[in-house]
Amino acid sequence: MEPQEMMGKYKQEVEEYLREFFNEKKKELEHWSSREACEILEEYTLRGGKRIRAILMIMGYRLYGGNMGRDIIKAASSLELVQSYLLIHDDIMDESELRRGKKTVHKIYEDIHLKRGYGGSPKRFGENMGITLGDLANAYALEILSSSNFPADRKIKAIEKLNEIIEYTGYGQIIDIYSGMVEEFREEDLLLLHRYKTARYTIEGPLILGAILAGESGKGLEKYAISVGVAFQLHDDILGLFGNEEKLGKPVTSDLAEGKKTLLIIKALENASEEERREIFNALGNPAVTMEQLERVREIVKKTGSLDYSIKMATRLIEEGKSALRHLEVKDEEARSFLLWLADYIIKRSY
Amino acid sequence: MEPQEMMGKYKQEVEEYLREFFNEKKKELEHWSSREACEILEEYTLRGGKRIRAILMIMGYRLYGGNMGRDIIKAASSLELVQSYLLIHDDIMDESELRRGKKTVHKIYEDIHLKRGYGGSPKRFGENMGITLGDLANAYALEILSSSNFPADRKIKAIEKLNEIIEYTGYGQIIDIYSGMVEEFREEDLLLLHRYKTARYTIEGPLILGAILAGESGKGLEKYAISVGVAFQLHDDILGLFGNEEKLGKPVTSDLAEGKKTLLIIKALENASEEERREIFNALGNPAVTMEQLERVREIVKKTGSLDYSIKMATRLIEEGKSALRHLEVKDEEARSFLLWLADYIIKRSY
Repeated sequence: MEPQEMMGKYKQEVEEYLREFFNEKKKELEHWSSREACEILEEYTLRGGKRIRAILMIMGYRLYGGNMGRDIIKAASSLELVQSYLLIHDDIMDESELRRGKKTVHKIYEDIHLKRGYGGSPKRFGENMGITLGDLANAYALEILSSSNFPADRKIKAIEKLNEIIEYTGYGQIIDIYSGMVEEFREEDLLLLHRYKTARYTIEGPLILGAILAGESGKGLEKYAISVGVAFQLHDDILGLFGNEEKLGKPVTSDLAEGKKTLLIIKALENASEEERREIFNALGNPAVTMEQLERVREIVKKTGSLDYSIKMATRLIEEGKSALRHLEVKDEEARSFLLWLADYIIKRSY
Repeated sequence: MEPQEMMGKYKQEVEEYLREFFNEKKKELEHWSSREACEILEEYTLRGGKRIRAILMIMGYRLYGGNMGRDIIKAASSLELVQSYLLIHDDIMDESELRRGKKTVHKIYEDIHLKRGYGGSPKRFGENMGITLGDLANAYALEILSSSNFPADRKIKAIEKLNEIIEYTGYGQIIDIYSGMVEEFREEDLLLLHRYKTARYTIEGPLILGAILAGESGKGLEKYAISVGVAFQLHDDILGLFGNEEKLGKPVTSDLAEGKKTLLIIKALENASEEERREIFNALGNPAVTMEQLERVREIVKKTGSLDYSIKMATRLIEEGKSALRHLEVKDEEARSFLLWLADYIIKRSY
């Protein structure tokens, strides 16, 4: 099967399982407010996404000879609820009103508050519900994984790994929050952030989880996973500065306005003139940053060689990752091919 | 051993384990901001508390013949990190600045922000860190439980149960948030809230978790656990309205100011005159509620028979719970005696 076709097929199967899970869950619930919460979580989780984490978990499982079927689809679906958990909390932290073109969870509840004319602060109410629904999504994720049809010892290892992923995503989140604040934010801090928040969470974690459920440790996969994961984030940061609004689904000035200290910015600051550094600092973290300022930052990032530096690092990481994967002993060549394709896809995508 | 002595002994052992866990954890961490987070979590978790949930888990384990030792102490300690997780998020939702007389996590970070002179909103920064540290505490809790020295199948069942507890605490939290908002908040909503947020989380869940690790289902324990749990919360609400500031550790007007719809309030509203109902509504959810208003609400709650109603319900529940426990087949009479003592202790405590 072609990689693109596999992406579509597994995405559909994962979403089917999630729909079923939510239908069962809603039936169990006694109170109207629990059912309301469950419906909001369902809509939020199913409103879109490539299901890349679930698909990688399936691929990790196949790589080590796991038999395809409903069991791994179910177990892998848990990652989509972890994703809801972290995104719902992220949305609150960033005060985002939209996620995939629709209202974020705290915003949905804020609007419920306004519509029903409750007392007190709608924002507080929305955020409190958002925190709680995020926590609920995590409980659902662990429920799915721990009740999946695998031997108990493998499930325990998988749960330990999943927790480790969530733990390190938390440390990554903390570094991320600090990144906009501290003066001294260096390349090594940034690469650690990418390792924790993207590489482990999005690529390495899911693959290893699949390997564990197939009865293996997935040792040797890390090189591929971490390299491709960091490259993924570097490419994301390039799109964030040089992409266009339509494909990004957010204003092109967002990353600058948020004050994101990407590798592009860090390297440009290192090599820019005093005047150019001032221009970058005037744009960075400035909610009112203009298109003219963005254009100037783009020019400086190019001129200082910082864009090249990021592109080269991403390309090198992808090659290293692919090479490591080619030398790995695996039991399913189709899964290997998929992952080799995915590595290239990751730095070619334009959104 | 006397019950009080057992409380002290297990509390100490649990805290020793937690200290050890945090020491090991801090050694693993690479980034200063991860270590800072871990230290804040350690201090918050260890600053006090009766460790009642951990102790109940130990007692559930003993009831069904589990052998005392380090393994159950470690597993039970996980509940104290679940407690940190939920309290840290709770503190944010209630915008509390103090917990056990010291700063809440979001407040600690808010102060870090101010002290270091970072840009942006100190409140937002504090809450974002609080959300993240709560999430981290949950990951730590699951790490401890899943790595504890019990057979994998028992651990899987325990993890399923723990998730269910956290899930239902979430539903309880949602009912709680709504309770202050919706007009129609009835006795049955309140009792469901107490069942989810207190009885399952504080009493039933921990006992069943202990039973599961001893290889039993704990069937039959629910009657004791739910009855005592609901009584615990009813008593808490009585202390919240009739207690004194010194023992409560918060202003005696807090529950009224927060707009808490306790059984005391619900029953008083049912039986009060139009004029008295107005007095209650003027006090309820009023951040500027006075001591005079509190005194009037106390009088109305007594006069309408609502205080008696709550006391009688709590006393009846405790008797029912104890009776159920007396008829249960258990393997450890000392653990049974402890739980019988605890039931009485719960509605006698003045703080």
